Amino acid sequence: MNLFESGLGFGPANFTPLTPVAFLPRTAAVHPDRVAVIHGDRRITYRDFHARARRLASALAARGIGAGDTVSVMLPNVPAMLDAHYGVPMAGAILNTINTRLDVRTVAYILGHGEAKALITDREFAAVVGPALQQLGRRLLVIDVDDPLYDGPGDRLGEIEYEAFLAEGSPDFDWRPPRDESQAIALNYTSGTTGNPKGVVYHHRGTFLVAVGNVLAWDLPPRAVYLWTLPLFHCNGWCYSWAVTLVGGTHVCLRKVDPALVFRLIAEHRVTNMCGAPTVLSILINAPAEQKARFDHVVDIQTGGSSPPAKVIKAMSEMGFRVMHLYGLTEVHGPSTCCEWQEAWDALPADEAAAHMARQGVRNAVVAGQIVADPKTLAPVPADGKTIGEVLLRGNTVMLGYLKDPEATEAAFGGGWFHTGDLAVEHPDGYMEIKDRAKDIIISGGENISSIEVEIVLNRHPAVQMAAVVARPDEKWGETPCAFVQLRPGAEATSDELIEYCRDNLPHFAAPRTVVFGPLPTTATGKIQKYTLREQARAL
Amino acid sequence: MNLFESGLGFGPANFTPLTPVAFLPRTAAVHPDRVAVIHGDRRITYRDFHARARRLASALAARGIGAGDTVSVMLPNVPAMLDAHYGVPMAGAILNTINTRLDVRTVAYILGHGEAKALITDREFAAVVGPALQQLGRRLLVIDVDDPLYDGPGDRLGEIEYEAFLAEGSPDFDWRPPRDESQAIALNYTSGTTGNPKGVVYHHRGTFLVAVGNVLAWDLPPRAVYLWTLPLFHCNGWCYSWAVTLVGGTHVCLRKVDPALVFRLIAEHRVTNMCGAPTVLSILINAPAEQKARFDHVVDIQTGGSSPPAKVIKAMSEMGFRVMHLYGLTEVHGPSTCCEWQEAWDALPADEAAAHMARQGVRNAVVAGQIVADPKTLAPVPADGKTIGEVLLRGNTVMLGYLKDPEATEAAFGGGWFHTGDLAVEHPDGYMEIKDRAKDIIISGGENISSIEVEIVLNRHPAVQMAAVVARPDEKWGETPCAFVQLRPGAEATSDELIEYCRDNLPHFAAPRTVVFGPLPTTATGKIQKYTLREQARAL
Repeated sequence: MNLFESGLGFGPANFTPLTPVAFLPRTAAVHPDRVAVIHGDRRITYRDFHARARRLASALAARGIGAGDTVSVMLPNVPAMLDAHYGVPMAGAILNTINTRLDVRTVAYILGHGEAKALITDREFAAVVGPALQQLGRRLLVIDVDDPLYDGPGDRLGEIEYEAFLAEGSPDFDWRPPRDESQAIALNYTSGTTGNPKGVVYHHRGTFLVAVGNVLAWDLPPRAVYLWTLPLFHCNGWCYSWAVTLVGGTHVCLRKVDPALVFRLIAEHRVTNMCGAPTVLSILINAPAEQKARFDHVVDIQTGGSSPPAKVIKAMSEMGFRVMHLYGLTEVHGPSTCCEWQEAWDALPADEAAAHMARQGVRNAVVAGQIVADPKTLAPVPADGKTIGEVLLRGNTVMLGYLKDPEATEAAFGGGWFHTGDLAVEHPDGYMEIKDRAKDIIISGGENISSIEVEIVLNRHPAVQMAAVVARPDEKWGETPCAFVQLRPGAEATSDELIEYCRDNLPHFAAPRTVVFGPLPTTATGKIQKYTLREQARAL
Repeated sequence: MNLFESGLGFGPANFTPLTPVAFLPRTAAVHPDRVAVIHGDRRITYRDFHARARRLASALAARGIGAGDTVSVMLPNVPAMLDAHYGVPMAGAILNTINTRLDVRTVAYILGHGEAKALITDREFAAVVGPALQQLGRRLLVIDVDDPLYDGPGDRLGEIEYEAFLAEGSPDFDWRPPRDESQAIALNYTSGTTGNPKGVVYHHRGTFLVAVGNVLAWDLPPRAVYLWTLPLFHCNGWCYSWAVTLVGGTHVCLRKVDPALVFRLIAEHRVTNMCGAPTVLSILINAPAEQKARFDHVVDIQTGGSSPPAKVIKAMSEMGFRVMHLYGLTEVHGPSTCCEWQEAWDALPADEAAAHMARQGVRNAVVAGQIVADPKTLAPVPADGKTIGEVLLRGNTVMLGYLKDPEATEAAFGGGWFHTGDLAVEHPDGYMEIKDRAKDIIISGGENISSIEVEIVLNRHPAVQMAAVVARPDEKWGETPCAFVQLRPGAEATSDELIEYCRDNLPHFAAPRTVVFGPLPTTATGKIQKYTLREQARAL
């Protein structure tokens, strides 16, 4: 024992478990009258936001829901969804946000596997949730959100409406931080492309740090006005559910990404920040001109999931947005890596700068390690921008593991690193660039073809709105690239023309052999459903 | 064991101890060519800063200095001082920054009590350090900083010059984070007003969080240009030693607060942020006009130690500075509380806004708890702006304790709160305002008199530059207030005039009975040496 280990240590005066839940009481104490949440004409101050969260915790506790219990929610980005990010963990429970675009079977599976004790559900999703509850075949507390801003079909399914449920609780509920910061705070099911989804367990320490990391990486300003174009069910809104509260910002709710509404809200509330999958950017760019309300400030927008093409960056910039590209996964609480701007890029032509911005980039300051490496030996690949390896991540922002799946957890954490399943190169400047999901790589005549590289070329073609490339089984070559292409409205192009275009810009073996035209299927989080396309390609 | 406690937990993939040391490798990897440190004409890039820190760690390790060993430094704000904030903990050792204005006896005491294994010392302090080493009476590794920017007197005392010592080390030293984030990182002796100073032990978790808290509370911008007007020996530069590196900013070194140089550096490097005790603000305000180089941007300056008077805020603002008032102590790693701006103050007249800014304010987001309370019962005082209680703080930013002084540690942590010894009121808006140090309160005829309140009134008088009020023993009243006043250059005022002025602005019993004119003695950290004044008052 050295000099500094004797009579010194952590105790109640100098240790408190880290938790992002604590951001709300602090902001509510300092800025009680500031608007925390905007939803249509409704304004909720931080004082009231804090009271609502405590009411929710109290009402849940009164129904016997507490430590280690799962509370599922099937909600759009409405005030109840924000309340749940604080109120559920204040009760000691774990928040399970369900992707609202899932089907009956999957919702039933998640409620069952996650052992939900309660479900808060919006009337809009009754047609899925109703049958899912029947399939589940056991009773649980069901609370309906009957949002005045929703006037579509859908019955109430539960025993009580959400606002009435809140009224049952006390605004003075005396919540306590978790006993240990390694305790679970949220449960997010991966939008599994095959088989049953896996339940990713988030912890208090990790979500606290990702929220802090978001503020640092983006310089999220104090009093940010954050528009919820990103689903809050997606990695808890990439932890912006907590980060926006940390900086005392305003959450602007949004039930769905309706471009006319998005532009109007940006102008009306002087939105400073928003996030979204690439499809959100497409929706905004391709909105009819009359929907594009002008605004006279710059809106910072983060996007991830796939690289923003140069033309998207340019089109967004012309509309008043500054795009930042990031990378993350459900398993690392959302954002982990961002394409941090370099001073040297200021002087580059737009296209070259865009090429840099297309890279996923460098680890956030709260992430302990990021390497592109051989997943077995853990030896990093040379930083040559060419050699492909797997992206491995390490540190406090990695999940606790997969719920009830120790084998999958152990496999994911092999060698003390989280194995992302993403294949990438590392450039000489240390910036990482994703080349493909491990399972999306196409092996043709022994050559590795990055489906993403082919997509990047296709996306550059003026007639193409969106493209996806998957492997198609081939007797001679093993696999060949098969492109699915959605053309811009009114644009035309032939298969031969696009294949020729790819041959001019790629090694010949990487050019698609087949091109299929039509709208592309996307997941709820805006990712293209490659597994569907792969099946189609197999059946061609 | 609940659902979420089975098969899930922390391991090497999802847990790394928090440490601010990790900020340097991360920034060096992302921005290797950015200027990290400016010192005169010298520029040190982040690549080189990282290499220097590792060389220092490596050279220390080669001399057998490692886990649990103390490395003391007696340095102004020079590159070696910044290196030490990373290199010393990279070696597993604890950094002990010594106040460079201390006397021989105290320096010898600190080297002895802290069991220093090595000392890095600047030639400027040889006249104190030389005799202190003799008093210490044992050998230790002494490394001299012989800074080309210092041309004053002072011999080299050690066996090797600092740059030569760095050259002994390897720039590839493979440092490891601490085994546990509760491990000590720094040792800072309080500038004790009586008796021997106490050694406050800082931990990796706390310094990480205070650095993050600084960025959040001040919105410290990415690429901040930070001028070192605050001594780095003062709470490790309030943890800005680490926070500036976290945001990839530039440290601008400064051997001493020479106003001509400060103004020139601000203009030359477009300094964005700086900190300082109230004396730093006074020095800048009272600098001769010809030294006040103009700059065309706003410089954010944080000050703490005592409230900035309205006239100081106004004078600073006219010169281009935006003042933020904060509060902290050595025992909480520096800043803990800040006077966070409220939108409602925007509309106030300058004087009223200044009255709000004079309050110490609210806890930073990384501080778990702050109350103004009865130190025995822990019952908070009413938030009425009148009732005095002690400021109690709690959470991860509180020190590990006092080195080799478990009794003092236990007393400081009574009831699970750190007892600051500062007396304050809490205003209805939750903003805390310090009224006095517990030991500075004056009790006259049974009435509590806040020495600070009397000082505030005196400071408002146009002839007064600085005032300090202490208790003077009195047979009839027990104690009476005695004022020590330093007049502005060229200004005149009589005792009677100042006493009358106080009677017009305070309860009569609170007006000083005695006024002594002359320059006020200050400590190295800019605090007025009240214990000296108290002795003088006793001898009157």
